[in-house]
Amino acid sequence: MTKTKKPWDGRFAEPTDKNVERFTASIDFDRQLYRYDIEGSIAHCRMLAKQGIISDEDEKKILTGLGDILNDMEKGKLDLDCALEDIHMAVESFLIDRVGEAGGKLHTGRSRNDQVALDIRMYLRDEVKDVMGLIGILQEALHKLAKEHMETIMPGYTHLQKAQPVLLSHYLLAYWEMFKRDSERFGECLKRINVMPLGSGALAGTGLPIDRKYVAQLLDFPVITKNSMDAVSDRDFIAEFVFDAGLTIMHMSRFCEDLILWSTEEFGYVEIADSFTTGSSIMPQKKNPDVAELIRGKTGRIYGNLITILTILKGLPMTYNRDLQEDKEPLFDTVHTLKSSLSILSEMAGNVKFDCEKMRKRALEGFSTATDMAEYLVMKGVPFRESHRLAGKIVAYCIEKNKDLSSLDVAELKNFYGGFDEDVYKYLTVEESVNVKNVPGGTSKEMVSKRSKEIESNRD
Amino acid sequence: MTKTKKPWDGRFAEPTDKNVERFTASIDFDRQLYRYDIEGSIAHCRMLAKQGIISDEDEKKILTGLGDILNDMEKGKLDLDCALEDIHMAVESFLIDRVGEAGGKLHTGRSRNDQVALDIRMYLRDEVKDVMGLIGILQEALHKLAKEHMETIMPGYTHLQKAQPVLLSHYLLAYWEMFKRDSERFGECLKRINVMPLGSGALAGTGLPIDRKYVAQLLDFPVITKNSMDAVSDRDFIAEFVFDAGLTIMHMSRFCEDLILWSTEEFGYVEIADSFTTGSSIMPQKKNPDVAELIRGKTGRIYGNLITILTILKGLPMTYNRDLQEDKEPLFDTVHTLKSSLSILSEMAGNVKFDCEKMRKRALEGFSTATDMAEYLVMKGVPFRESHRLAGKIVAYCIEKNKDLSSLDVAELKNFYGGFDEDVYKYLTVEESVNVKNVPGGTSKEMVSKRSKEIESNRD
Amino acid sequence: MTKTKKPWDGRFAEPTDKNVERFTASIDFDRQLYRYDIEGSIAHCRMLAKQGIISDEDEKKILTGLGDILNDMEKGKLDLDCALEDIHMAVESFLIDRVGEAGGKLHTGRSRNDQVALDIRMYLRDEVKDVMGLIGILQEALHKLAKEHMETIMPGYTHLQKAQPVLLSHYLLAYWEMFKRDSERFGECLKRINVMPLGSGALAGTGLPIDRKYVAQLLDFPVITKNSMDAVSDRDFIAEFVFDAGLTIMHMSRFCEDLILWSTEEFGYVEIADSFTTGSSIMPQKKNPDVAELIRGKTGRIYGNLITILTILKGLPMTYNRDLQEDKEPLFDTVHTLKSSLSILSEMAGNVKFDCEKMRKRALEGFSTATDMAEYLVMKGVPFRESHRLAGKIVAYCIEKNKDLSSLDVAELKNFYGGFDEDVYKYLTVEESVNVKNVPGGTSKEMVSKRSKEIESNRD
Amino acid sequence: MTKTKKPWDGRFAEPTDKNVERFTASIDFDRQLYRYDIEGSIAHCRMLAKQGIISDEDEKKILTGLGDILNDMEKGKLDLDCALEDIHMAVESFLIDRVGEAGGKLHTGRSRNDQVALDIRMYLRDEVKDVMGLIGILQEALHKLAKEHMETIMPGYTHLQKAQPVLLSHYLLAYWEMFKRDSERFGECLKRINVMPLGSGALAGTGLPIDRKYVAQLLDFPVITKNSMDAVSDRDFIAEFVFDAGLTIMHMSRFCEDLILWSTEEFGYVEIADSFTTGSSIMPQKKNPDVAELIRGKTGRIYGNLITILTILKGLPMTYNRDLQEDKEPLFDTVHTLKSSLSILSEMAGNVKFDCEKMRKRALEGFSTATDMAEYLVMKGVPFRESHRLAGKIVAYCIEKNKDLSSLDVAELKNFYGGFDEDVYKYLTVEESVNVKNVPGGTSKEMVSKRSKEIESNRD
Repeated sequence: MTKTKKPWDGRFAEPTDKNVERFTASIDFDRQLYRYDIEGSIAHCRMLAKQGIISDEDEKKILTGLGDILNDMEKGKLDLDCALEDIHMAVESFLIDRVGEAGGKLHTGRSRNDQVALDIRMYLRDEVKDVMGLIGILQEALHKLAKEHMETIMPGYTHLQKAQPVLLSHYLLAYWEMFKRDSERFGECLKRINVMPLGSGALAGTGLPIDRKYVAQLLDFPVITKNSMDAVSDRDFIAEFVFDAGLTIMHMSRFCEDLILWSTEEFGYVEIADSFTTGSSIMPQKKNPDVAELIRGKTGRIYGNLITILTILKGLPMTYNRDLQEDKEPLFDTVHTLKSSLSILSEMAGNVKFDCEKMRKRALEGFSTATDMAEYLVMKGVPFRESHRLAGKIVAYCIEKNKDLSSLDVAELKNFYGGFDEDVYKYLTVEESVNVKNVPGGTSKEMVSKRSKEIESNRD
Repeated sequence: MTKTKKPWDGRFAEPTDKNVERFTASIDFDRQLYRYDIEGSIAHCRMLAKQGIISDEDEKKILTGLGDILNDMEKGKLDLDCALEDIHMAVESFLIDRVGEAGGKLHTGRSRNDQVALDIRMYLRDEVKDVMGLIGILQEALHKLAKEHMETIMPGYTHLQKAQPVLLSHYLLAYWEMFKRDSERFGECLKRINVMPLGSGALAGTGLPIDRKYVAQLLDFPVITKNSMDAVSDRDFIAEFVFDAGLTIMHMSRFCEDLILWSTEEFGYVEIADSFTTGSSIMPQKKNPDVAELIRGKTGRIYGNLITILTILKGLPMTYNRDLQEDKEPLFDTVHTLKSSLSILSEMAGNVKFDCEKMRKRALEGFSTATDMAEYLVMKGVPFRESHRLAGKIVAYCIEKNKDLSSLDVAELKNFYGGFDEDVYKYLTVEESVNVKNVPGGTSKEMVSKRSKEIESNRD
Repeated sequence: MTKTKKPWDGRFAEPTDKNVERFTASIDFDRQLYRYDIEGSIAHCRMLAKQGIISDEDEKKILTGLGDILNDMEKGKLDLDCALEDIHMAVESFLIDRVGEAGGKLHTGRSRNDQVALDIRMYLRDEVKDVMGLIGILQEALHKLAKEHMETIMPGYTHLQKAQPVLLSHYLLAYWEMFKRDSERFGECLKRINVMPLGSGALAGTGLPIDRKYVAQLLDFPVITKNSMDAVSDRDFIAEFVFDAGLTIMHMSRFCEDLILWSTEEFGYVEIADSFTTGSSIMPQKKNPDVAELIRGKTGRIYGNLITILTILKGLPMTYNRDLQEDKEPLFDTVHTLKSSLSILSEMAGNVKFDCEKMRKRALEGFSTATDMAEYLVMKGVPFRESHRLAGKIVAYCIEKNKDLSSLDVAELKNFYGGFDEDVYKYLTVEESVNVKNVPGGTSKEMVSKRSKEIESNRD
Repeated sequence: MTKTKKPWDGRFAEPTDKNVERFTASIDFDRQLYRYDIEGSIAHCRMLAKQGIISDEDEKKILTGLGDILNDMEKGKLDLDCALEDIHMAVESFLIDRVGEAGGKLHTGRSRNDQVALDIRMYLRDEVKDVMGLIGILQEALHKLAKEHMETIMPGYTHLQKAQPVLLSHYLLAYWEMFKRDSERFGECLKRINVMPLGSGALAGTGLPIDRKYVAQLLDFPVITKNSMDAVSDRDFIAEFVFDAGLTIMHMSRFCEDLILWSTEEFGYVEIADSFTTGSSIMPQKKNPDVAELIRGKTGRIYGNLITILTILKGLPMTYNRDLQEDKEPLFDTVHTLKSSLSILSEMAGNVKFDCEKMRKRALEGFSTATDMAEYLVMKGVPFRESHRLAGKIVAYCIEKNKDLSSLDVAELKNFYGGFDEDVYKYLTVEESVNVKNVPGGTSKEMVSKRSKEIESNRD
């Protein structure tokens, strides 16, 4: 019974209802914060002693006790019962069990409100760094692929219709750019996470002579929060992280969509290794791009988590309200979903084989150089709108005659516009079509190589 | 080794990557479907035997094996390894381990696609019934409270400003009506859940002479699905369930919002029992309405789950895609969140104490009978717009003089309109204000009692 | 200036700030409710006269006035200024301008809170009926296509990989089933919309002797609301409608996804008529499936509207709060988006041409009859798991040898399993594969025709 | 007919269906981009001439034409018909009407895909700057109020229960900090908006010798996009803007929630000026905080817009797809909603009157100094957990005896703990309670003033 005694039950006549205990407990999920909770407590304790709020002797007891608890937790030796409400209460309760009265002094000058804010910020700054590392690995995997396919020509699509030939490397580096923005956003979010809230108390600060900057220093926070009421109710950084995760997995979902399409027999541009696909319980021939499908599906999961957090925060009166306890599960789930998706996609990127020949062949079809023909006419002096219309008519003629653009002879072309000449054919090859796009950001080999080198030399 | 051998690896040259195995496995969460998976398999097996597709001997072996597995699962004796992918594969693998070759015949004429559709429908129809039961219990709790407070007068609010006096019973029964609609919606959703999909195969049906209606009958489904392609990719009923859950918890969130407001010292209308509140780690005087706050917060959770499901489904090509595996966790979480919230709120409803005296006193303040005064003037022949304006001016006069409406004497009133008379005071009491609202649906004691009796006699 | 005088300004010392007027006005969007507002007012007025609350003379004046206003509104003759706040105030203000004092009596016994609830329910029941009609038209268009393609064989997909051959008609009727469920849901929602709220007043009912059932009868409502506090704050039916719309457009988005895929050169199963596609401003050869893409995109719009409504409602204290004004724009936008998408998709369905030959040819590829081979082996007595594995190995062999299943000779097959015989080839044709799926809901021609006839004869 | 001739109809045999035209047209909403479209075209034209791609003469014609069109648009002289599809086609069509063949040259070297990306970035960078300005104004309004109430004591709340006394200025500056983070996020988003995409063509770049950096310079963009495929399909900056707007209005919704609560008669801490409230159509006494309620409600609107954008983007294959057209309405609506809400809230902040006396009086109630009593005991050497428990017991005793903490005499206190002394009373005043929280970020007057001065001197 002693264990389930609430530290706050001084004014209460009746004990907490068992169902209420279960309903309100967060120990099932916030237990994963234990390491941060203990580290934070260690710093808090050292500061209390430095400030003379607790004695050196008590400090020693507490630090030893916390060290032992951390040790036992790592080994899974401690039983976290939901009567203990949350990880903060659990750690404190273990501490009092071990070191007695001194343990009851640890919570001096702080509240669970600022303590949980600290724990979650410590947790999340570690996770953001991990995430940024994983994005980097995915970018590298894409860049590696791009370098392998620097000259591979594929059909570029808009509206899923063949549009113009592009380099596969250019396509892959487009994703590199997206992930670069994602990484940037996480880096900015990190600045807002990395702020030390302890010392904000329940909402007003504390009347004890604590030293907040010392705690920040011990825990490696560059700055401290500037308003205690804001500090205990601020969950912006969680929403922001989940949103950033949402954009990141959205980018992955687009890449996966392409991989799924390209793995179809109809497209046939890519083959995902057996080890990255799964089969069917009934259809023996199936080889399914499950990993890509799952990442696409998990996008919904992170979007959902974002809505969860935003809904919780809307219209909440100041300052802390218990609704905020519901922030953790969607956050933890987002971290886990994002990290596992990033890892597996990076791995998978090294396990796909592009059918370069087919890609090139397909780029030749579908009149994908019609725009080049129009631009050829522009150079011959035809206004763009007119040249676009002419090329359109030629395409219609080809469809009717079941021909390709490059198979028309000059005589036929002259029926549409007298200025056509032999030099037009140069514009109608896919190599030329690609290489002529030699503007910064364009798909010419020169430009894509240049960008690749910038990436390599970190000049980005 | 046998265990992690994939039943579908005939055409595969390389084994599944370990990380891929972990990433794609659903066994961690779909294990909670085990009972339905086994029940469904039993019915399928009996049908296969009845149709002569498997022998009676094999049937017997399989049924015994499945019974044993169910038994062991209930006792937690079986270890579900993620190499087994999902609960369907796990059960089949256990079966083959136990009964040998016969076990390999169970999957005849079905696919995981129709099997998972069956499991989830069986699971959800049970849960919907539970949910409807829990809503009924909450409605009863509200109705019980309403009967206890049939004549308690409280201020009714719009814009959180006092509007007109109403009965607390009327207020409580307003929630009864909301939950009635919720229950209705779940009942309708149940019709769409309760449709038997087995026999749809992977997407096309099966070439074996199965008897779908017999399976439906064994499993107590009134109807079977009518299109195999639809059947394996339909998750509408999940989205619908989660939406219905969203409206239900939204209603709870509104009730909880009121409980939170009414528990403030400022309102002071309600005291939640100690056993349903919790304290503060730092502020000794605190008694917080945590349960109500958490339910309000959990609304965000179900909204998030809804977005997860809807996002997954959008733009998915026909038919089954692996994205659909992501439907289960948000569904399970919604079921759990909704059920626990309904239970705890019903319990809490029996643990609140209304301060009826204060409610009545507050109903007297704030000019809450000004509308009655305006309606009095209408009866005296003043057009409504004019009477509204007159009453407004009298309120402004009262504010200036710091008086209440009922404390004005007739002479003062006559300054505003000559037709005022002694009979006006009858209209200015809260009892009269309430009881005069004697239209169906109105707050008069007569009307509220009548509605209560309808509810009691199930004439609704 | 008289016009912008607020009907409620009796107690106010300062006029409304101009920016506040603009910010709070709903007249810009609720003007589309004018017809319902006037019809509702006519019924209310007739009831007031019948009950003797207003004189017959006033009734006549008001009815004439309202008739004229309706007339002028239809002709666009009336200027709706935002100083008039909302459509209810605007109509009342026009009425007073035209018929004088009698106009001031119209608002007797009602409030804007129950009035807007009435208007929106009248509006929405009309729109739901429209929507159900449009869904019916889309279903017919799909059914018509299905009948035209009763025997067209196409490859069925799971994971976007070829799975088994199916009939195009079966595929199309899968959508028919989805839209049937949608229609059902709208029909159920309609029951909850079609409830008459007038007489609930601001929240408490009214003290005047009104006759709510008479109003219901005049306006063709089968029932009246049963609790005034619930009635003025209930927006469930809006959320439900938007959710139902969300599922409907989600189904459309899946069909559109398929149309987009099938319009690619790579699939090439469908050609959308020129009149239903658009071109590129720069690429002369392009013909883009814009309509399908837009419907897919508009899914996001309705999902967003759903979140808007749900967010507004969460945690709102009883009863009416001004937040509820934000319900209308997302509702109107949902109605418009859904109706226009349904219409255009029905039209487009009549403007697509399937390349049946290509579909059939593709169904032959990709080992899509491997499952049939496995089921053949089951009939020969091989346990399913073993037969699945054998078929998988044969597929792997074919891939290596670059052969198709049906091109293997019996000798080759016997290398895998001695029981293979000439009769296997029957199972490997796509026609046989389809027709053997002769279970209810399966893709055999017999079953699909049967379903089509059920649909035709409304036996569904 | 000339007008509705599509610039891309070269290859089309049939004209666009009228309903399709209406369904796909974006001119109804993208017309608000006209200024940016024309400015962008002017820069593009000047670059084309500088590069010798068009002649100086054509340049002059085009620039004159565009200037005239801009002029006419500003005056509302031009009729935008939906046959013109979008604002880009409309401007080009007007140009050709006015300057003939030269107009047909403007689109040389660009596509609508990069053109719309340019327009929307130009539009949004202007709007973001506006938004940041409006946030600054709101912060100033809050800071001004804070300075007026530097010493006003109010009860601080957690769980909506009185927790500890705080300064109203501290409370107001908590919002200042939130809006500061919002502003920071918008500033970072601006960096990602302010990137020049023109020259990316449809997806691949262009074969014409354009000068992208010159265009960037003319349009005041610091950098250009680095990958054409990414550039035409990137809408991250829109999602990010809408999310940032979501957090900002969420913060406003929390402030509004407090204003609504504090405007109740029960709290009575604030009176909003008549000019910022509205009345009731039926209840003459009502004065409703509509503006605050609407802002709270509009939060749902922006959340909805966020989901719209995110849903659209999920799983979209590369590169441009028509779904992206659906990005504009939610963006425009978000900009409008956010700006009008920020403006009106800043104005309203100057029109609220705090009842400082009541706030102070309420801060005295509710045992809000119980934590101070506990901290007093800590200083006397009692371990925190024990002192918390003691203070809790004293509170329970007070509730039973209906007393306040400060009204207990030392003898009574000594019954709980012998070490109590006269000096305890100093800790039980609200002034002392506030001022003792003299840690950085705490609510002491010294700390709040310090923060205010930092804000004033922009040292933040």
